Amino acid sequence: MLTREELDRLRVVLVRSRNPLNIGAAARALSNFGCLRLRVVHPYAVAFREARSAVDAEPVLTAAEEFEQVAPAIADCALVVGTTAGSRRTPEAPPCRLEAGAEQIRAHLRSGSRVALLFGSEKVGLSNQDLSHCQLLVRIPTRTEHPSMNLGQAVAVVLYELIREAPTGAAASAENIAGQVVSGQVVPVQSLATSGERERLIALLLEGLSVNGFDHGVSHARMEKKLRRLVRHLALTPSDMSEWLGLLRQLLGKLRAAQPLHRKP
Amino acid sequence: MLTREELDRLRVVLVRSRNPLNIGAAARALSNFGCLRLRVVHPYAVAFREARSAVDAEPVLTAAEEFEQVAPAIADCALVVGTTAGSRRTPEAPPCRLEAGAEQIRAHLRSGSRVALLFGSEKVGLSNQDLSHCQLLVRIPTRTEHPSMNLGQAVAVVLYELIREAPTGAAASAENIAGQVVSGQVVPVQSLATSGERERLIALLLEGLSVNGFDHGVSHARMEKKLRRLVRHLALTPSDMSEWLGLLRQLLGKLRAAQPLHRKP
Repeated sequence: MLTREELDRLRVVLVRSRNPLNIGAAARALSNFGCLRLRVVHPYAVAFREARSAVDAEPVLTAAEEFEQVAPAIADCALVVGTTAGSRRTPEAPPCRLEAGAEQIRAHLRSGSRVALLFGSEKVGLSNQDLSHCQLLVRIPTRTEHPSMNLGQAVAVVLYELIREAPTGAAASAENIAGQVVSGQVVPVQSLATSGERERLIALLLEGLSVNGFDHGVSHARMEKKLRRLVRHLALTPSDMSEWLGLLRQLLGKLRAAQPLHRKP
Repeated sequence: MLTREELDRLRVVLVRSRNPLNIGAAARALSNFGCLRLRVVHPYAVAFREARSAVDAEPVLTAAEEFEQVAPAIADCALVVGTTAGSRRTPEAPPCRLEAGAEQIRAHLRSGSRVALLFGSEKVGLSNQDLSHCQLLVRIPTRTEHPSMNLGQAVAVVLYELIREAPTGAAASAENIAGQVVSGQVVPVQSLATSGERERLIALLLEGLSVNGFDHGVSHARMEKKLRRLVRHLALTPSDMSEWLGLLRQLLGKLRAAQPLHRKP
């Protein structure tokens, strides 16, 4: 079971939602399950805050934070989780089922980390660019013949899985599972650097690698994508992150001192 | 996990639903989770079969059985389960939480019994008359301040709970490993880069950072120790390691090209 304080570390992020009724329905689910922090990235409809579907959930809609891009909407979150129907795209690795993904999310919330939970648009879900920010992909175990859920229903199901409690009989084994998840990890879950720090690391690497142009004629966009993937895999703790940022700044300083004229922004 | 045959014994019964969009949304959730038998009792709108919200779930709506009363709609079912927000009425016995109720429903389905799952109207839920048919009452564990869910979302959550699989033992760790390939947090031990590769990474970093001497007068030995600790924490896979080595070689190449005279071995 998650405490109120732990749930308060969760940010539900709706990316490019088309239908304000779905945003309202999502807000209602947030309110039902006690997750009160909604973020909205570039919604198609400006008037989403008046959605009638947010029955009794007006406070959640009123307090919703609005962003134009995904990166700033998740900058203060340590764990970024994407949701996918797992049907259209083939990401780097297959998404894990919600049941297992939720265990990891709960572990991070309990450890004090902020977690962002991303839901894509009704038509196309999360883009590859959105997915490049995600450290964990989860899918609701819908049947293969009809995988794609309504947005409001998907939000409700994921939040329910997060707050549900294993019935007392199975409680002991659930505890064991949580223990396995934590102990199986190379890096302790409690201490991941934020998405914003990861972006700073990527920016420093990009600056260094772009001096005199990228090698092998690689484009800026492609290099950025590659770096985001590599950095996402690092699972750095906040203190290690700050050391790596310091070391990279030193390297860049040496590079800048060497050729100020050739330096690219 | 329920088999297709077991799930086929479930009847989802919507009693006096007001909004055809909610019936459509419920049908979509049924289709998503592979429960294809919908029954509708005295819907307010006759045209519910055309609900646009039943995205890709038209077969469920088309095959839905319609009844005027609850009794005939559940006549062929052995177990009758009512859903309630548990807020307005005080029934004979308090409803049990969905997590525990679902275990009983699954047990009945597995034993060959037909189970009816009743959802009331959006405004008032199931009536006392409806509840009098129910052997089991379940409630979704919403928070006390906002217990009442949207009908389509409630159907989705209950069906999800029925089909979800507890991540037990080997299954859980298998799921976790799949998730971890994405997150990079728990990499199977056998797929870690070798110590020799980690040393090459450290050597490249040392070379770059030593150009014009280490910053802040740090000694070579101390920097080496720090880098070894930081690199050990990274838990890189062989393929990521080879990409990082390539990127660092590029950075060093730019540094060397800039000041060949100051380069240190």
